[in-house]
Amino acid sequence: MSDSRPIGVFDSGIGGLTVVKALRELLPNEAIFYLGDTARVPYGNKSAETVERYAIELARMLMAENAKLIVVACNTVSSVAIPKLRASFSVPVIGVIEPGAQAAIARTQNRHVGVIGTRATIRSGAYENALRALNVHVRVTSRACPLLVPLIEEGWLNDKLTDNIILRYLEPLISEEIDTLVLGCTHYPLLAGAIERAFGSKVKLVDSAQNCASAVKELLDQRSLRAPAGNPGNLEVALTDAPDNFLRVAREALQLEIGEVQLREVIHSAPAL
Amino acid sequence: MSDSRPIGVFDSGIGGLTVVKALRELLPNEAIFYLGDTARVPYGNKSAETVERYAIELARMLMAENAKLIVVACNTVSSVAIPKLRASFSVPVIGVIEPGAQAAIARTQNRHVGVIGTRATIRSGAYENALRALNVHVRVTSRACPLLVPLIEEGWLNDKLTDNIILRYLEPLISEEIDTLVLGCTHYPLLAGAIERAFGSKVKLVDSAQNCASAVKELLDQRSLRAPAGNPGNLEVALTDAPDNFLRVAREALQLEIGEVQLREVIHSAPAL
Repeated sequence: MSDSRPIGVFDSGIGGLTVVKALRELLPNEAIFYLGDTARVPYGNKSAETVERYAIELARMLMAENAKLIVVACNTVSSVAIPKLRASFSVPVIGVIEPGAQAAIARTQNRHVGVIGTRATIRSGAYENALRALNVHVRVTSRACPLLVPLIEEGWLNDKLTDNIILRYLEPLISEEIDTLVLGCTHYPLLAGAIERAFGSKVKLVDSAQNCASAVKELLDQRSLRAPAGNPGNLEVALTDAPDNFLRVAREALQLEIGEVQLREVIHSAPAL
Repeated sequence: MSDSRPIGVFDSGIGGLTVVKALRELLPNEAIFYLGDTARVPYGNKSAETVERYAIELARMLMAENAKLIVVACNTVSSVAIPKLRASFSVPVIGVIEPGAQAAIARTQNRHVGVIGTRATIRSGAYENALRALNVHVRVTSRACPLLVPLIEEGWLNDKLTDNIILRYLEPLISEEIDTLVLGCTHYPLLAGAIERAFGSKVKLVDSAQNCASAVKELLDQRSLRAPAGNPGNLEVALTDAPDNFLRVAREALQLEIGEVQLREVIHSAPAL
């Protein structure tokens, strides 16, 4: 059994391409349709209700592309909208939180895990809940880091200024002796090098993009949804607004082959308010 | 003749409250209805078409509040959507670009003006066009500073890290010998202190919020639209999504008396795409 329909991946913007990169390395024969909601990015400071509504709209657009699976390549959306998405669509839905939490539990030795992300992700407590569901004895210290996304989008990936902001955000977590740090935003793998420079051996990094890709592979195998061997594995990228500087940064940093970027209009659903 | 209808002010988010602050100081008897599109903030990296469509939607909501005048308290919107807004609504529309450009021309002595703003504002060339329309001999050096808004929203207003990022962004402009700097984003007046610390006497700052408020006062006088003396001058604030941390930062930094914040749903217009 095999299934050549594409994997549908969506994100609030372009950060989810880190998940695409991890998927392509792990599953080179899978076709991927990526949808980034750049017209409304970022979601990180928006309310749960609004993020949920946007997520349904984007998933519907992926279903129109005949997706066999929906990957929520966005921590903010994964932290608030997975139950609603699973209830609304017939295909499997995979987010980044659960795989990241599992990897963190597997790696921590002192059972003290740090989590960084956008304000919405941290406020949701989603990682804390997922970690505690796996191990009630785990201690979780979280911090919202709203400057990291714009620093990454500026392309200041190897930069003293960025290093100083990382120190400001992370030093309190390190002094509380976390031994594992979940990079709870799909942008953050692009700062993994900078974080390792700052804290080196003191902390193990959990990259939500890589762990999400592993979870996708496992699910495709379980459900016999893998593409046939030899499938060309095209990548299509669509955005809801014209791409800005960050697409260039991501392309370079991730070395992703992206053809022409398509422009798509969001079909608005009726607001719940 | 007087007119007690409110002044309608809108912005992509909460930054436009710097304009509200300037309006209240200059026109304490005017009622103000402020609308911040926090559900879709920020506009700074979005396309001109999208920003124009959002602007029409917000102005329509202000007209439903019986606004006598629409103030576009957002540089991004002012830089791309003023002609469309003026064509679409019967009340006067005032943005922040034209007043800021006039003030800069009045202040520069060496006719070399710097402009900082979001990517969309700088890319639009709106300040450059407005400055050149006033004086063909003016030289304009612009720079997009996408990190300043998140730094302000983080509340790091008097902070070494912020000072270093300001230096990174502004040093090239200072070494090119601008003598006047337009703060081309309504958030930026909250960093005026930090910029003065960094460059002190080397550069005169043009605060787009203050100059916009002066232009509003002038227009109300010209058209006999001032509120009656003794009018209580209420301030109503409505947002399209729940307020986040930045409302607290702005309230404290601006010392604005804001009552209960209303939540409003955007009425979507048909997309042009």
